[in-house]
Amino acid sequence: MTIQLGANQYGKAETRLVHVTRGAEVHEIVDLNVSTALSGDLTDTHLTGDNAKVLPTDTQKNTVFAFAKEHGVGEIEDFGLKLARHFVATQEPIHRARVTIEQYGWERIDVDSSPAPHSFQRTGRETRTAMVTVDTADGERAWVVSGLRDLVVLNTTDSEFWGYPKDRYTTLPETHDRILATAVNAQWRHVDAESDWGKSYDSVRKQLTEAFATTYSLSLQQTLYAMGERVLQHCPEIAEVRLSLPNKHHFVVDMAPFGLSNDNEVFFAADRPYGLIEGTVVQDSAPEPGMAW
Amino acid sequence: MTIQLGANQYGKAETRLVHVTRGAEVHEIVDLNVSTALSGDLTDTHLTGDNAKVLPTDTQKNTVFAFAKEHGVGEIEDFGLKLARHFVATQEPIHRARVTIEQYGWERIDVDSSPAPHSFQRTGRETRTAMVTVDTADGERAWVVSGLRDLVVLNTTDSEFWGYPKDRYTTLPETHDRILATAVNAQWRHVDAESDWGKSYDSVRKQLTEAFATTYSLSLQQTLYAMGERVLQHCPEIAEVRLSLPNKHHFVVDMAPFGLSNDNEVFFAADRPYGLIEGTVVQDSAPEPGMAW
Amino acid sequence: MTIQLGANQYGKAETRLVHVTRGAEVHEIVDLNVSTALSGDLTDTHLTGDNAKVLPTDTQKNTVFAFAKEHGVGEIEDFGLKLARHFVATQEPIHRARVTIEQYGWERIDVDSSPAPHSFQRTGRETRTAMVTVDTADGERAWVVSGLRDLVVLNTTDSEFWGYPKDRYTTLPETHDRILATAVNAQWRHVDAESDWGKSYDSVRKQLTEAFATTYSLSLQQTLYAMGERVLQHCPEIAEVRLSLPNKHHFVVDMAPFGLSNDNEVFFAADRPYGLIEGTVVQDSAPEPGMAW
Amino acid sequence: MTIQLGANQYGKAETRLVHVTRGAEVHEIVDLNVSTALSGDLTDTHLTGDNAKVLPTDTQKNTVFAFAKEHGVGEIEDFGLKLARHFVATQEPIHRARVTIEQYGWERIDVDSSPAPHSFQRTGRETRTAMVTVDTADGERAWVVSGLRDLVVLNTTDSEFWGYPKDRYTTLPETHDRILATAVNAQWRHVDAESDWGKSYDSVRKQLTEAFATTYSLSLQQTLYAMGERVLQHCPEIAEVRLSLPNKHHFVVDMAPFGLSNDNEVFFAADRPYGLIEGTVVQDSAPEPGMAW
Repeated sequence: MTIQLGANQYGKAETRLVHVTRGAEVHEIVDLNVSTALSGDLTDTHLTGDNAKVLPTDTQKNTVFAFAKEHGVGEIEDFGLKLARHFVATQEPIHRARVTIEQYGWERIDVDSSPAPHSFQRTGRETRTAMVTVDTADGERAWVVSGLRDLVVLNTTDSEFWGYPKDRYTTLPETHDRILATAVNAQWRHVDAESDWGKSYDSVRKQLTEAFATTYSLSLQQTLYAMGERVLQHCPEIAEVRLSLPNKHHFVVDMAPFGLSNDNEVFFAADRPYGLIEGTVVQDSAPEPGMAW
Repeated sequence: MTIQLGANQYGKAETRLVHVTRGAEVHEIVDLNVSTALSGDLTDTHLTGDNAKVLPTDTQKNTVFAFAKEHGVGEIEDFGLKLARHFVATQEPIHRARVTIEQYGWERIDVDSSPAPHSFQRTGRETRTAMVTVDTADGERAWVVSGLRDLVVLNTTDSEFWGYPKDRYTTLPETHDRILATAVNAQWRHVDAESDWGKSYDSVRKQLTEAFATTYSLSLQQTLYAMGERVLQHCPEIAEVRLSLPNKHHFVVDMAPFGLSNDNEVFFAADRPYGLIEGTVVQDSAPEPGMAW
Repeated sequence: MTIQLGANQYGKAETRLVHVTRGAEVHEIVDLNVSTALSGDLTDTHLTGDNAKVLPTDTQKNTVFAFAKEHGVGEIEDFGLKLARHFVATQEPIHRARVTIEQYGWERIDVDSSPAPHSFQRTGRETRTAMVTVDTADGERAWVVSGLRDLVVLNTTDSEFWGYPKDRYTTLPETHDRILATAVNAQWRHVDAESDWGKSYDSVRKQLTEAFATTYSLSLQQTLYAMGERVLQHCPEIAEVRLSLPNKHHFVVDMAPFGLSNDNEVFFAADRPYGLIEGTVVQDSAPEPGMAW
Repeated sequence: MTIQLGANQYGKAETRLVHVTRGAEVHEIVDLNVSTALSGDLTDTHLTGDNAKVLPTDTQKNTVFAFAKEHGVGEIEDFGLKLARHFVATQEPIHRARVTIEQYGWERIDVDSSPAPHSFQRTGRETRTAMVTVDTADGERAWVVSGLRDLVVLNTTDSEFWGYPKDRYTTLPETHDRILATAVNAQWRHVDAESDWGKSYDSVRKQLTEAFATTYSLSLQQTLYAMGERVLQHCPEIAEVRLSLPNKHHFVVDMAPFGLSNDNEVFFAADRPYGLIEGTVVQDSAPEPGMAW
């Protein structure tokens, strides 16, 4: 038996960067959580502790901050590409860099119904994400996956669930009207490593929520597919959408013991367990995913 | 030495209630987390396990659901008052009931730029709260405390901190320009147990954010006082405001080692430790707090 | 109407201190989360932003670290007393200091069945706590409250719940055998500000768990009282015990639909809602609590 | 462009099962969090909402509970195999089932220095995990991955970090003595789907902690490799170990400004950012991983 090192990577996770653009009158703010991970010729440090090829994770963190100053931040996909390309270009033993970024939304505080110039509140809605991978093993190649998570949506009707197989352990009654709720976690792979990222994000987000709202749903799987399909139909820059949708169960409270009816008006929102529906929707003319994921 | 029972209460915590109002075309949704707590003549169950005076917490939970059906929800302060009054009115040994409610915000999903009739997304902003106390030991009296938490706000400038005492352990440099950020946790006591709760909430929230945005701040304490003062000046229905403001430190990254300047552009957002500023602002003609808190 | 400042305090929360005692062969480790809060003559900073009386929270954090070096840590009650006394003694405008400490448990890793000299693993059991208050408004007085939280305990039998009032909303069936489980959150006030803290902690913890295990319980209130009573009976240094016990419901799964019996063997452990039982047990000869809480 | 369904699965996540074995005198307890996920011929429900092949996630949950009654729980790997085989055997369209289980540790409460027969406390140490996959696309095959997470370990010395590349953004000083701390997240793939799971777990856990404690570390990568290597050397039933080790930074507090030395005695335990070291150690004679991960 021979023991050997397999796949590995290392980096600095969750560098919390806030960048302020200080205009003459008005400030802009960007709030990110940046993680970097490097792979390459790293056998030495694993086997002997020789760190000659190990750019410290502390340096990676510093680079995140320094790049925000030197290049600005802009769209997180671009910021991730800049960082990833820097690491593979400057560290000879490093063949691959992956940069994962979360962006938290802020909006201006209104004062007397006008937006204040340098005062902000967190929107608290979904977190926008980007995962950028650059690899130089076969020439420099780059992949960009954008995404969002914790976009909590709910339909109060137009959702059914019936016609499923029943076995000895099945007790669930069929329903022709239920609440359908989920916290959308979505990632979508871009065809190219260049795009109008901000515009693309807004468009994908819009398709996801509109598809959720307008799909008359017989299963959360049907809704999932409709969401992915709608994105691919409207956003030709997207090759593939991956969705992970927890079915956040809302149970109708049985009020018969109280002598009351409950026509889908009062629900108990349960924590656990929850259904978990995961699926991918792809366009078949899209390029291969390579190392995107 | 004699051992005896002191202050005590019991109830059901965190009943997750979602209520849907199903109009002909358009649905409305309310999403709450309701906790109830009862006090009174409860010595028996503590000393002997005799539960003759102990309305089960399961019944309290059922009551929350049933009341949503029977009376609707409306403003959370009213819903809390209804529940609290019910418990003290129907359970003879119970002298006091406290109902604490959290409300999560939802807004409609837009489809083709129009709000969908029964599709929603969580806003994710602050959580609105209410704490209602009804006591019958000296006639029925009621107190209402409204509030909010996790309203995250940030000023990119107009904040200084200097002129403080220095001792042997002081290393903090004085600053004349810093980020000031906090997650506002506020509770405000109403003069009366009757009010236009929704309108009052909107007004208080507006005063809090406007005061945060417009106060040129020499200390977070100064901002805290300004926020409370502004609420009391504009909202005569409020007797007292209590604020708990974590100072969410944003440290300017030192870029001198990289040969770069950093004129308050790039910040590290720290997790722990954090400053914690807590204070109360009261109007002196207000009624005594009684059992409000 | 006059608006004025009410109760207030400020400080540094959650300073994460790890202290290593480096013996010749063997190291010891202490892992704390320390929060400090100061009150006193602090009107100026609230009203005008004058910070002449405001020892920075950054200095408070530095003091925590420096005191660990200068005085060692020892028992957390003593460490809290040293810090609190320092702040009121050296900052003339500060009349009261409260220091709250959490301690996380570690134990040695065994190597070849012997404890390693400088390798540790977190125990993950309960968090030990201390809350120390020193006030100088009427001569220097000190109060010490010790405690623990998140001590999760469970009895698989010897728990009943019946004989409670039933109203229109009651559906809970009576039970003569159920699981009783809780996460103990307890705080106990010491008679004096001097004690053998470590020995006292071990003794109280032992009384709490033994009382939980040996009380045949007709209600969680009865168990709560038994736990507090047992502490006071065995620990004369304790004046008062406050307990907050979530009733972590374990529901018997109904297996009749599957044609199976379930004699209290298979349970669903629910998250929310949960019962919450809170109570105080006191010995009547104890000194008044003063500013202990 | 054609749009199509890609990889997908669905199931019930986080079913919280507590199982009690009620002996004549003494009870045993098992506390699990069970997630199931099924894949197969599921195109219909995605495209049309036809659920004829969709065993409800509610039924999957019921099956978890029922199997605990019918077959007992035993080792989590065996419980997972039973569940996974059941789903693929009874649901014709389902080709693959994955069952993921977390197990929380409990130990008996001592009363008068003897273990109580039916009273328990959570140990709070690491969570034991198992991920079992059964696939029938090419005859029934099964893979078992065991693991643990949140095993927090710390060495107070015998850790260095130096000799790394420095670039423009490097500020980290080299160190020849530092704290090394991590929360071990490990998963290990078994050679076979049959083993003495409990004994194997104890052995792997022992190798992981002993390797952590006894490796003089020049990098966390070196420690990671030593941990994996040690497992493979001592546990021939294991084919591969995957480790994800956050570097939980403990920074030496600079006490020079206070006129104090700090010889690795007082540390600030930081939250974010943190290093993240991920790696795999494999034995080359092991079978291919197939669908294990």
